[in-house]
Amino acid sequence: MLIEELKLKPISLAARKAMQQKVDELAKPVGGLGKLESMAVDLAGMQATTDLRTAKRCCLVFAADHGVEREGVSATPRKVTRVQAANMVLGKSTVATLAAANNCEVKVIDVGIDGDPEDERVINRKVMPHGTNDMLVEAAMSRTEALAALQVGYEMAEQSVVDEGTDILLVGELGIGNTTPSAAIIAVMFGVPVAQVVGRGSNISDERLLHKTAVIEQAIAKLKPDKEDPIDVLSKVGGLEIAAKAGAMLYAATHGVPLILDGFISYAAAVIAEGILPGTSKYLLASHASREVGTKLSLEHLQLQALLDLNLAVGEGSGAVLVLGLIDSMKAVLDNMNTLADLEVIFTR
Amino acid sequence: MLIEELKLKPISLAARKAMQQKVDELAKPVGGLGKLESMAVDLAGMQATTDLRTAKRCCLVFAADHGVEREGVSATPRKVTRVQAANMVLGKSTVATLAAANNCEVKVIDVGIDGDPEDERVINRKVMPHGTNDMLVEAAMSRTEALAALQVGYEMAEQSVVDEGTDILLVGELGIGNTTPSAAIIAVMFGVPVAQVVGRGSNISDERLLHKTAVIEQAIAKLKPDKEDPIDVLSKVGGLEIAAKAGAMLYAATHGVPLILDGFISYAAAVIAEGILPGTSKYLLASHASREVGTKLSLEHLQLQALLDLNLAVGEGSGAVLVLGLIDSMKAVLDNMNTLADLEVIFTR
Repeated sequence: MLIEELKLKPISLAARKAMQQKVDELAKPVGGLGKLESMAVDLAGMQATTDLRTAKRCCLVFAADHGVEREGVSATPRKVTRVQAANMVLGKSTVATLAAANNCEVKVIDVGIDGDPEDERVINRKVMPHGTNDMLVEAAMSRTEALAALQVGYEMAEQSVVDEGTDILLVGELGIGNTTPSAAIIAVMFGVPVAQVVGRGSNISDERLLHKTAVIEQAIAKLKPDKEDPIDVLSKVGGLEIAAKAGAMLYAATHGVPLILDGFISYAAAVIAEGILPGTSKYLLASHASREVGTKLSLEHLQLQALLDLNLAVGEGSGAVLVLGLIDSMKAVLDNMNTLADLEVIFTR
Repeated sequence: MLIEELKLKPISLAARKAMQQKVDELAKPVGGLGKLESMAVDLAGMQATTDLRTAKRCCLVFAADHGVEREGVSATPRKVTRVQAANMVLGKSTVATLAAANNCEVKVIDVGIDGDPEDERVINRKVMPHGTNDMLVEAAMSRTEALAALQVGYEMAEQSVVDEGTDILLVGELGIGNTTPSAAIIAVMFGVPVAQVVGRGSNISDERLLHKTAVIEQAIAKLKPDKEDPIDVLSKVGGLEIAAKAGAMLYAATHGVPLILDGFISYAAAVIAEGILPGTSKYLLASHASREVGTKLSLEHLQLQALLDLNLAVGEGSGAVLVLGLIDSMKAVLDNMNTLADLEVIFTR
């Protein structure tokens, strides 16, 4: 993947229009299926067909640690990233159990876990062996490392789609402390005060929240990431798994594959991907409204509307997987429902 | 069923507490699964166990016509009730296609369709052969007819649970014009102006909305339903399918069976059932927030929180069925996820 050569696949306006018509002809009130209808229209535009392909789906869970975690921004210890990576390939984490119930494959890709998950089912694509640097001290990654992590995400998406025939990509992540780089990215890219977009991650205290906010503010003041250069922002205050997620999105947007976001970390990755290749967000579905504070601002910026609002704060891709049930349901409607014209036959009896 | 002898089955507080503990011990942030966790706790309290029974589910779709439809309150012709009843047992309506995708049985029960659906799979339990009377002229039903319709709902729920082992009941409906009696019921029972709770049903015009509001106001002024007597309200300004839905809820609440509501018509039925047997709403799950205007007020009154907000306006039980995917997903989490204690084993490697 060469960033300069990425080219957005145009959304099929013809397929969007045809899907809107198909939906309107079904034997129900016009617009009666609400957000499910707009989701179907969006998917049609991405896949350039009204005959949606939804059977094969794969959740790419990118895992990495964060130097800034050493500043005490999270209440959860760093080793949980490694432990949960192993737990996930055992089928025992949140997203793993949800994915099994929703007919979705899960791949766990180590792009920089500090230590070895000791399970060969965790795919080793480490870019930095111990995770990122502490952004309070130095840039989280070099530009080369950020590009390498983007490349991993792009390649994992490509492999899943080309070699395995994946119809719909989902992204999730593991990385203790990763709401910190996510909030940093969003604050810089949107040019808003950190306090507007920083949240409690997995339930930190008021005190720790103030500390987390100060850490991000200091890192931004010190490193001066350039919002006109998304890769500069990503490398200075981002994370390896965030970069890899953005890379997967760039593959999706250049090859016409729908990609389902999870929560706040996904929004940060999407903002970077959209910065690199404007229009990328047209290939993204927002699964759920994360509980994090910057959610509303992020989704507005990306022009996305969340399908679910369940007050989730697990990450891993758990919210993304929950949307598959809605997609399967809407697919059943499109495949099996009668149209108003069909009803005329019954009418005339 | 004798109304006077109905007795609420107490919610198991022990099972609620045990489920909360079970959920908190899973290897994820406390509360991280948001509304799915509170749903699991609610189901545990209803079923009096943490080992939720969710495999067998049945959507009871009650169908009937409405005298008030002749006043032009809906833009959809009356015969659509009959046509859609036949379409539904063919597996071709919205709820039928959604139910097939969500492993849910659908039964269509005619409690007063005007005419014959001419498909023996539509269960004939007609209480009034042409639907209710026009509430602008006279009471929609006699008290005896209202009680008979309640009885049908109660018996259909009983049969499904006792004879067929249904674990979770869902309710849906067919009845052109039925947002009118629903709004009338809610306005009377809450003692609020009609305009606060009347909506556009399946997309009526501004002009028709004003007319619909006036019709309801006039019917209430003429018939003077007594809000202290829910069966009086039901019979004067209600509907046969609304009564049957309320009857199914009364069965659920007296026998410890969870029942999933659909949209606005369900709320009206639930308000009646709660009025007849206070506490009934403890056995109800609100699937989605209907697009109708009275939604917020109704759900607050019932102390229910909608799980989905998809801007749906189809009815039939379509929103109720969509919640089954969330239930199956949460069941998978409960059955298969590791606890924090399990993780300790991985931790120590």
